Amino acid sequence: MERAVVEKIYQEHEKRFIEEWKEFLRFKSISTEPDYEQDCRKCAEWLVSHLRSIGFEASLLETPSKPTVYGFRKGTAGHPRVLYYGHYDVQPFEPRSEWKSDPFDPELRNGRLFARGAMDNKGQTFYVLKALEQLIKHDALKSDVTVLIEGEEEGGSEGFMAALAGWKDKLKADVLMVCDTGTLAPGVPAITMGLRAIGHLTIKLGGIHKDLHSGVHGGMVKNPATEMCRLIASLHNPDGSIAVKNYYDGVKEAAAEDRALANRMPITMEQYAGMVGVPPLGGEANYTPLERRGFRPCIDVNGIHSGYDGPGSKTIIPSFAIAKISARIVAGQDPKRCVELISQHLKAHAPKGLNLEVEGAAGPGRAVSLSSKSEIIQKARQVLLDVSGQEPLFMWEGSSIPVVSVLSEITGAEPLLVGFGVEEDNMHAPNESFSLTQFKDGFMYASMMFGSF
Amino acid sequence: MERAVVEKIYQEHEKRFIEEWKEFLRFKSISTEPDYEQDCRKCAEWLVSHLRSIGFEASLLETPSKPTVYGFRKGTAGHPRVLYYGHYDVQPFEPRSEWKSDPFDPELRNGRLFARGAMDNKGQTFYVLKALEQLIKHDALKSDVTVLIEGEEEGGSEGFMAALAGWKDKLKADVLMVCDTGTLAPGVPAITMGLRAIGHLTIKLGGIHKDLHSGVHGGMVKNPATEMCRLIASLHNPDGSIAVKNYYDGVKEAAAEDRALANRMPITMEQYAGMVGVPPLGGEANYTPLERRGFRPCIDVNGIHSGYDGPGSKTIIPSFAIAKISARIVAGQDPKRCVELISQHLKAHAPKGLNLEVEGAAGPGRAVSLSSKSEIIQKARQVLLDVSGQEPLFMWEGSSIPVVSVLSEITGAEPLLVGFGVEEDNMHAPNESFSLTQFKDGFMYASMMFGSF
Repeated sequence: MERAVVEKIYQEHEKRFIEEWKEFLRFKSISTEPDYEQDCRKCAEWLVSHLRSIGFEASLLETPSKPTVYGFRKGTAGHPRVLYYGHYDVQPFEPRSEWKSDPFDPELRNGRLFARGAMDNKGQTFYVLKALEQLIKHDALKSDVTVLIEGEEEGGSEGFMAALAGWKDKLKADVLMVCDTGTLAPGVPAITMGLRAIGHLTIKLGGIHKDLHSGVHGGMVKNPATEMCRLIASLHNPDGSIAVKNYYDGVKEAAAEDRALANRMPITMEQYAGMVGVPPLGGEANYTPLERRGFRPCIDVNGIHSGYDGPGSKTIIPSFAIAKISARIVAGQDPKRCVELISQHLKAHAPKGLNLEVEGAAGPGRAVSLSSKSEIIQKARQVLLDVSGQEPLFMWEGSSIPVVSVLSEITGAEPLLVGFGVEEDNMHAPNESFSLTQFKDGFMYASMMFGSF
Repeated sequence: MERAVVEKIYQEHEKRFIEEWKEFLRFKSISTEPDYEQDCRKCAEWLVSHLRSIGFEASLLETPSKPTVYGFRKGTAGHPRVLYYGHYDVQPFEPRSEWKSDPFDPELRNGRLFARGAMDNKGQTFYVLKALEQLIKHDALKSDVTVLIEGEEEGGSEGFMAALAGWKDKLKADVLMVCDTGTLAPGVPAITMGLRAIGHLTIKLGGIHKDLHSGVHGGMVKNPATEMCRLIASLHNPDGSIAVKNYYDGVKEAAAEDRALANRMPITMEQYAGMVGVPPLGGEANYTPLERRGFRPCIDVNGIHSGYDGPGSKTIIPSFAIAKISARIVAGQDPKRCVELISQHLKAHAPKGLNLEVEGAAGPGRAVSLSSKSEIIQKARQVLLDVSGQEPLFMWEGSSIPVVSVLSEITGAEPLLVGFGVEEDNMHAPNESFSLTQFKDGFMYASMMFGSF
């Protein structure tokens, strides 16, 4: 469908869309709090009915945790199969007192709909459902479309991911469409082109029975705090690159055009420094900050603790030191192997005379890194240009959405991550909202994107 | 006087000595708790009377904190002048419930007198006073003797040290005798030959407004926890030596005979490891553990804290990291300069892109390191051999007693540190005690030592 047609349809139905969206938002589908178990199920059942009402076969798929909403609509042969993934569960709302209106009684103020889940992910999922409804109505949906809306994303999707393998046959697809991301500024469309995978390690260095007097023992024993620092320092080379042996094996250099696109973000080093407090001078010297985040692995200390933490001084040698480390892992790297390599490095560099314990685990899923040359990405680029009149941003993100790569691996589908969230939406915070403009942009994108397959 | 004569005198007077010592112990002279202000003063006044009763001119010297007890007795010209330093204040007694008898109602059980201060420092000071009493009585004290017993050692001696300069003329001496140390095993005499000075630094590395998402920012900014580790790691060379520029300037190699004496301690690496939990493998590789403690400077991390400290993982880049460092400083080094050099090193190695704050201060006093060739030390060695029939241990300690070097500098006196404390005495802990055997050994030593000048 043409942009003008889609816009006209939207205007015709906007009021109803908002009323139905509000209905969806009234379910207290907080997945991480046991009190809301029934609210989650009711929300899922409502979605099943809604999917049926717009033309899908739909049912609940049970998991070890919350039920997943499954919908399917057969299309015409020869078109790509599309799997839409979203989630109906929301974050807790506390503290209630900071909300200007009831988090589960949606309120429209200044063109924004305020409610828990207004954006994440009920709002973004609902414009997709409304787009599908209208495409079906106007006989413009050619693809096989599978809808999978899970109920425990905010709690880590463990039960959902455990159940996925059993649904493999149901989920085969060519495109995995997700609308759970955002962009940098309202009205500027963006395609999320990459996600890093993650691994975690906890390191403990000790063996000393109790804190020692630093005068009596200083210089005699190895100091666990000092040695932990030396051990952690050994993870990086002076140039900021990772010093763990073979760690970069399999990491491919990003294509020149993708690097160029990644660097074309509308934020300067100065703006970044103003926002964060310090300039982006970490990591490997021969990559730009955005390239480092998007294409390069990194290892971060999330916490290190040892010894005295009060005012003044306490002259002890701490009996132990503990550090928590996370690794952001990129395309071409096996997360399990990365964790194992770090663990081996730590053991190989462990100081003699102290005891080292290392525990590590890779998160689910591998990294995702898409090429701007991909046919689907180019199609999305064109759709977003048509919808907004602007070239979209191409964002290789540094964070992790494990379910995307897990779903992509199981279904064989190529991820397509486009969303309309912005900072102002207060995702996960009090007074979450999503503007009608964002909702409309989402509807336009989803309609034209699904319509293009 | 001969050993046999001194022993006979002790046996004759032991009962009275113990009764008087108990009187001294009954004062609740806890200097760090305001409630005991008057108890401290009464204890000091009792000491003044006691000193007068045994033949001293005595008075209270006021300080900005607790009064100091001052006593003086003129000797015969041509003998070295001796200054005895001790303290009448004691540690708090809490927790009371762990004491088997009242901490301020001394009780003799199995040959040990139990009370707060029984050893530290009332017991060791009192055998000195009793030795002086008997030497005077037998006309065997030839030296000018000054007695200085302060009342705030357990609180850091700040007021006392501030007042010291004003008493300079009163305190001139050749020998500074202190009996506030111990030995390794009961009956084995020991001379403390060295004390290290101390400096403190607090390091903060930050500049980031708040903890950052380690996915979004990992690899973009420098991680304050990682960089703190690299900064601290930069303080040492791979061989365990200190990497701070010019840090070893002025540090002299200990004489071969002193190194040999220092190493002649009755503890093996295995025993140390059993006691502490790990073997003494820290510090410079080309010195033994006891040499490192006694003759070499060291820098220790007393605490490092940054970021997450709970169960599981939290994928943040901590907004800042803090570390507390202490330096043990040896003879030939200026503590202020050491702190300044470390501070300069940290600033020179500070990571670009984060903010570094360093605060440092040297403790009062320099290190003390005595030579076994010293005439006074050789005299003490002979006295201890005569008293016990055993060669004393020569202990170059790694800890700091700032008042010793401050007094030594002000008075020009050479320190002589001999004490009879052992682990079993429970110094600073509940059920502190000092055995009558230790008390007698101290009396014998003090009598023969003062008698030898």
